[in-house]
Amino acid sequence: MIAEILSCGTELLIGSTLNTNSQYLAQKLALHSIDVYRHITVGDNVNRLVQSFAESTKRADIILCSGGLGPTEDDVTAEALAKFLKRPLIYSKPTEKFIKQRLAWRGFNFTPLISKQCYVPKGSILLQNQNGTAPAIVCLFDGLGQKKCIVLLPGPPRELEPLFDKKVLPLILRHFKNKKSFFEIRPIKIAGLVESQVADKVPDLLKLTPPTTVGIYAKPGLVELKIMSKANTRAQAKRAADKIEFQIRRRLGDAVYGKNDETLSSVVGKMLSNRKLTIASAESCTGGLFSSSLTDVAGSSRYFKGGVIAYSNEIKSGFLGISQKVLQEFGAVSSVVARSLAKNIRKKFKTDIGVGITGIAGPGGGSKLKPVGLIFIAIADRQRIQVLKKQFYGSRTQIKSRCAQSVLDALRLFLKNSE
Amino acid sequence: MIAEILSCGTELLIGSTLNTNSQYLAQKLALHSIDVYRHITVGDNVNRLVQSFAESTKRADIILCSGGLGPTEDDVTAEALAKFLKRPLIYSKPTEKFIKQRLAWRGFNFTPLISKQCYVPKGSILLQNQNGTAPAIVCLFDGLGQKKCIVLLPGPPRELEPLFDKKVLPLILRHFKNKKSFFEIRPIKIAGLVESQVADKVPDLLKLTPPTTVGIYAKPGLVELKIMSKANTRAQAKRAADKIEFQIRRRLGDAVYGKNDETLSSVVGKMLSNRKLTIASAESCTGGLFSSSLTDVAGSSRYFKGGVIAYSNEIKSGFLGISQKVLQEFGAVSSVVARSLAKNIRKKFKTDIGVGITGIAGPGGGSKLKPVGLIFIAIADRQRIQVLKKQFYGSRTQIKSRCAQSVLDALRLFLKNSE
Repeated sequence: MIAEILSCGTELLIGSTLNTNSQYLAQKLALHSIDVYRHITVGDNVNRLVQSFAESTKRADIILCSGGLGPTEDDVTAEALAKFLKRPLIYSKPTEKFIKQRLAWRGFNFTPLISKQCYVPKGSILLQNQNGTAPAIVCLFDGLGQKKCIVLLPGPPRELEPLFDKKVLPLILRHFKNKKSFFEIRPIKIAGLVESQVADKVPDLLKLTPPTTVGIYAKPGLVELKIMSKANTRAQAKRAADKIEFQIRRRLGDAVYGKNDETLSSVVGKMLSNRKLTIASAESCTGGLFSSSLTDVAGSSRYFKGGVIAYSNEIKSGFLGISQKVLQEFGAVSSVVARSLAKNIRKKFKTDIGVGITGIAGPGGGSKLKPVGLIFIAIADRQRIQVLKKQFYGSRTQIKSRCAQSVLDALRLFLKNSE
Repeated sequence: MIAEILSCGTELLIGSTLNTNSQYLAQKLALHSIDVYRHITVGDNVNRLVQSFAESTKRADIILCSGGLGPTEDDVTAEALAKFLKRPLIYSKPTEKFIKQRLAWRGFNFTPLISKQCYVPKGSILLQNQNGTAPAIVCLFDGLGQKKCIVLLPGPPRELEPLFDKKVLPLILRHFKNKKSFFEIRPIKIAGLVESQVADKVPDLLKLTPPTTVGIYAKPGLVELKIMSKANTRAQAKRAADKIEFQIRRRLGDAVYGKNDETLSSVVGKMLSNRKLTIASAESCTGGLFSSSLTDVAGSSRYFKGGVIAYSNEIKSGFLGISQKVLQEFGAVSSVVARSLAKNIRKKFKTDIGVGITGIAGPGGGSKLKPVGLIFIAIADRQRIQVLKKQFYGSRTQIKSRCAQSVLDALRLFLKNSE
C-alpha cells in the first residue's frame, strides 16, 4: 500500500510556515508500514490542486492532504477535491450543528464566513474536529479499478494531529489492510560524537541492504542511527533490529544514550529519580535553557529542586558566593567560576548534585583568548567536581541549545561513572 | 521565472527528519521575486529522482535539490542528475584538493569513502563548501529551447544555508535576471488574540487580490498577518505595503507587537534597554524557559540580571520568602504566590522589574479547581503589581512555551502602559 502526502498552502510555498504536518503524517504512516515515496507542497490554487490529486492518485492508494480547509477565500481544497472527483459540493447540516455547539461553548457566533466549512464533496465521510471547526473530509473512490482514498485534513497541527490519530488513521487501517509486512523502526541515539565519527565505527552496518538497513542522521548536537527492518511478522522484524542494536551498542559504548523516544532529559531524569538524587543548576550563558530542558520531562519536580540564572556578575557574587576578586582575576567565563557555581548552588539549594554553566553565547563578547562559543561546564556531587571546557559553533540560539544538550550528556556520564 | 524545490532523503519521507531546507530556500526565492509553485520530497532512489528532475524541468526554470550528496551508498543525487542529463560522472581533482585541505585542517584523513563526493556530472559548475565536504553542483542546460538550471545542494542546513546565500543565489541571479517585478513581504506580528479574532477585524484585507494581498497565519501562541505586494519598483511595493500596515495597526492597536524579524523577546528587550530598566525572574512551571527566551536576544545582559527557578516549594519558601503558611493555604499555584514571586525577586535581585510565574505544566498534577495549563503570571515594578490568570492547552512542552510567550506579551503591555 502506497500513500502520498500533499500539503496545501501558499504560506508553505513561500517559506513563511515550516511544514511540520508532512513530518507528522510521514512518521505515523511509517509506523503502520504504509510506504510513502513522495511529499508534495502546492499553493492555494484550485487548478494546481486538481492536477496534484490526479497525479498522486496515479501513483498512490491513499492521499493525505493538509491545509486549505479554513473559512477564508484562499481555502480551496474541498472545492478542488469536488472538482477532481466530479462531485458537487453539498451543505452538511450535521457539521453546521457540530460547529455551532463548539462555538457556543467558547462564546463565539456562527458567522456566514464559518458556514463555508460546512460545504463538502458529495459522498464524503466527515470526521468532526474536536480542536477546531473544519472537519476532516474522507473520499473513497474507484481509480482505474483500484480502491483509492483522498483525505483532507485541517492545517493547524493541534487540529490535524489528534484528528488524524483518533479518527483518520483507524479509518484508513480499516479500509486498507496491509498484512504483508511489518516494520520495526528503531532510532538509536548517540551523544558526544559527530556524524563522521559515528559512521567510522559502523561502516558495514550503514551498507546493509533491505530487509534490514541502518541510516545515519545528524541532529543539533546529537546523532541518530536508525535501524529499519521489514519482516513477515512483528516478532521477526524486532529480532532483526535487536541484533543490529546489539552491534551498535557494542561498538559505540557509552556514546549511546537511548533509543526510540528517549531524550537526554528523559534518560538523565530516569537516572536521577531511580537513585533518588536531587539536582540544582546555576546557569549563566544558557539563561535557563538547561533547566528548562531538564523540566521538559513530566515528573521532573521529583529531582529538580530549582536553579539560579546568574546572568550578571552581581548575581554571581551576591547570591552564589563568587568573589569579585575571582571574577576579576579569572573572568566570569572560566573553569574556576564554573566550579564555584556548581559547588555553591549544590550547597545553597541542599541538593545531591549541582551544575554550573558559564560561557559566551555571542554574537558579541568574544575575544581571541575566549572566543564566542567557549563554555565551561561543572558538575559537583558530595565527593567530586568535574569541569569540562567546550567550544561550540553557530548562532546565539544554536550555541545555547548545543550547550544545554552537552550539559545533559555530561551529567549522564557523570551519573553513570558514579554508579 | 519559476523555481521548484526538490528535497531528497528517505529520512524526510519517513518523517525522521523535519524538512527545514525547503522553507529556507523558499524564503530566499520569495525575497528575490522568484515564483515557487511546488515543493517535492522524494527518497534516495535514482529512478524516482530522474523522474522528478524530468517532471520539474517541464514546469520550472530552476530546480533546487537538497540532500543526497554525502559519501555513503544511499547518496545518489549526483548520479541521478548525470543520468537525467545523459552526461557521464567525472572525477573533479580541484574538489579533491579542496576537501583534502579542509580535512587536513581538522586533522581528518581523505578516505576512499569521501572520494565519492568528487564525482560530478560532466560540465557542472562546482561551488566549494566551506562548512562540509560536498560541493554544490550547478548544471545549466537547454530544456525545450529554454535555459534551465538544476542545483544540487548538500542536505545539512549549516552547509546548505551559507553555500546557497554566498554562492548559489548570486549565480542564479546572474543567469536568470528577473527585472519585471519586485515583492515586498512584510509579516505583521500579533499577540494576545487567536486567529479568528484577528480575522474578524480585517475581513476585507484578507479578501484583497494581487498585486497586494494579506494572508493570516497562526503560530504557537501568536498570529501573523503577512502583507505581500508586487510592483514594478521596490519603492512602489513598499508604499503599497505601508498603506496596509497602517490599516492593520489602526484596527488591531496594541495587539500588534512588531513586524518582519521582530520577536516578543527582541521587542521587550528594546523597550527595557531604551528605558534603561533591569529585570529579574522567578519561574516555577516554565522551568527557566521564560528567562531563556528573554536571553535569546544578543545584548540581553544589559537588562536581564538573572532569575531563580523555584521548582520546589523549599526554594519558593527558603529563597523567595514565601511562607509555608501561604503555600499551604493558597497552594503554590495561586495569584498570591505569583505576586510574591514577582515582588520578592525584584527586591532580592535589586532590579526595576520582577516577574513571577507559577502554574501546572502537566500532564499530571491537575485538579478540577486547578486544571493542567492553569498559570498565574505576575509583573511588579516600584509602583505596582499586575497579576494575570491564564489557561493554556496542549502538551507539557506546548504549555511551557505558550506560557513563556504569554509572559513576554504581558511584560510588553505592562511596559507600554507604564510609559
